[in-house]
Amino acid sequence: MLNKNMVKFIISLQKKRTREENKLYVIEGDKLVREFLMAGVQVMTLAAKPEFLNTLSTLQKQFVKEIIPASYEDLKKVSTLKTPHNALAVVAMPEIPMNISGLGSTLSVALDCVQDPGNLGTIIRSAAWFGIKNIFCSEDCVDVYNPKVIQASMGAILNVKVLYKDLKELLKAAAGSGVRVFGAAMEGDSVYTYNLENNGVILLGNESKGISDELYPFITDRIMIPKTGNPEAGIESLNVSMAASVIFSEFSRRRTG
Amino acid sequence: MLNKNMVKFIISLQKKRTREENKLYVIEGDKLVREFLMAGVQVMTLAAKPEFLNTLSTLQKQFVKEIIPASYEDLKKVSTLKTPHNALAVVAMPEIPMNISGLGSTLSVALDCVQDPGNLGTIIRSAAWFGIKNIFCSEDCVDVYNPKVIQASMGAILNVKVLYKDLKELLKAAAGSGVRVFGAAMEGDSVYTYNLENNGVILLGNESKGISDELYPFITDRIMIPKTGNPEAGIESLNVSMAASVIFSEFSRRRTG
Repeated sequence: MLNKNMVKFIISLQKKRTREENKLYVIEGDKLVREFLMAGVQVMTLAAKPEFLNTLSTLQKQFVKEIIPASYEDLKKVSTLKTPHNALAVVAMPEIPMNISGLGSTLSVALDCVQDPGNLGTIIRSAAWFGIKNIFCSEDCVDVYNPKVIQASMGAILNVKVLYKDLKELLKAAAGSGVRVFGAAMEGDSVYTYNLENNGVILLGNESKGISDELYPFITDRIMIPKTGNPEAGIESLNVSMAASVIFSEFSRRRTG
Repeated sequence: MLNKNMVKFIISLQKKRTREENKLYVIEGDKLVREFLMAGVQVMTLAAKPEFLNTLSTLQKQFVKEIIPASYEDLKKVSTLKTPHNALAVVAMPEIPMNISGLGSTLSVALDCVQDPGNLGTIIRSAAWFGIKNIFCSEDCVDVYNPKVIQASMGAILNVKVLYKDLKELLKAAAGSGVRVFGAAMEGDSVYTYNLENNGVILLGNESKGISDELYPFITDRIMIPKTGNPEAGIESLNVSMAASVIFSEFSRRRTG
């Protein structure tokens, strides 16, 4: 069972500061935990119902430091969900080496102040689906290790590198080496017919404010998703994660036909 | 100010049953309320801060039965949000006439047991963006008047008709009159190259179970969004609202170039 200190510690990891101090975060869910175990991620603590633990192979347990059989009540205490899953794990944050000099030879995403955890999570999931491997977040984006982000990303975090960066510096460096920056902007050209290239950076802005004035000048290619519905309709934009999916999809379509 | 009975009544509308009994639902948010007022929707009660009420024209107030100046504390009592907005309205559910015999001459969406309010809301928003006017929900979909759906749809509900239907009957009728049913299915053909037509029904399934066995046989055209990311990656699907956006976008692209 989970002792008091462990309960307290796991709950404390719901706070960003504690996560950063300990370089640890929490994942929840049978499927998610299993995926992390199979991916060989370093797991500090695995708290799960005996039924779940019994299904694990020795191979799956090899990267787990501590295994704690837990009851429903134990898991309920530490879960951020109303109904806890059968398994929860405390996981080490990865060291993420990311080569900025390679910006021009791959397709990356830069997120400017995306604040909703569900949006960041679905953008990561969508990026993984469409083969985008690097996401640069501005420092004021929601924390990728926020439980809601992890939940929404559905394990995609194992396949996409997410790095927090001063985007101004990043985009300055991109501009300096001739890397294209595709900015999603209202007054852009249609993404359907635009000359896209699968190298460069796709820049997406904040949920209500869009791309900040500070970063706007770094856009080399303004693209938008044409609104084909009633022009009078009050919706001024697509949600940022939907826009991301449509744009990623369009890059992917061009690449593969 | 909001009296006790009114507070109790507005809170009771958070329950689906009470909404249905009274044919009323609640919208929150300055922008959303303003959009509803401008669209000429019948508003039973508008509770808002005096600062907000002062900005309304006589025209905007003409469809409001009762206007109640409310304080922050009043609004906090009845809000489903942590921080209430300046305005909240109790709105009459529209009578939705929908012509099923017209299924073959327009593009509609059918949702099979979509349960997450955020997903339904973003699908409505996306439909409005891409000019899809009709959404048929199976009876076990989340209620469109759920506060979280309304919040996520961002006013798009004013432009999209959402009707609850026995989808088996609907699709049987569609099949009977030669209407195409485009089903989003894993083993489908790439939506990028598939012969799409802007008439018919796009059928999308439940978040984890996909399209139910009962409805599957009615699909005439199986389409899917190719996964171009790492095939080994654990993500088995796109989130249903992302998939919806990508598919709507692809239909829209074909229509407009």
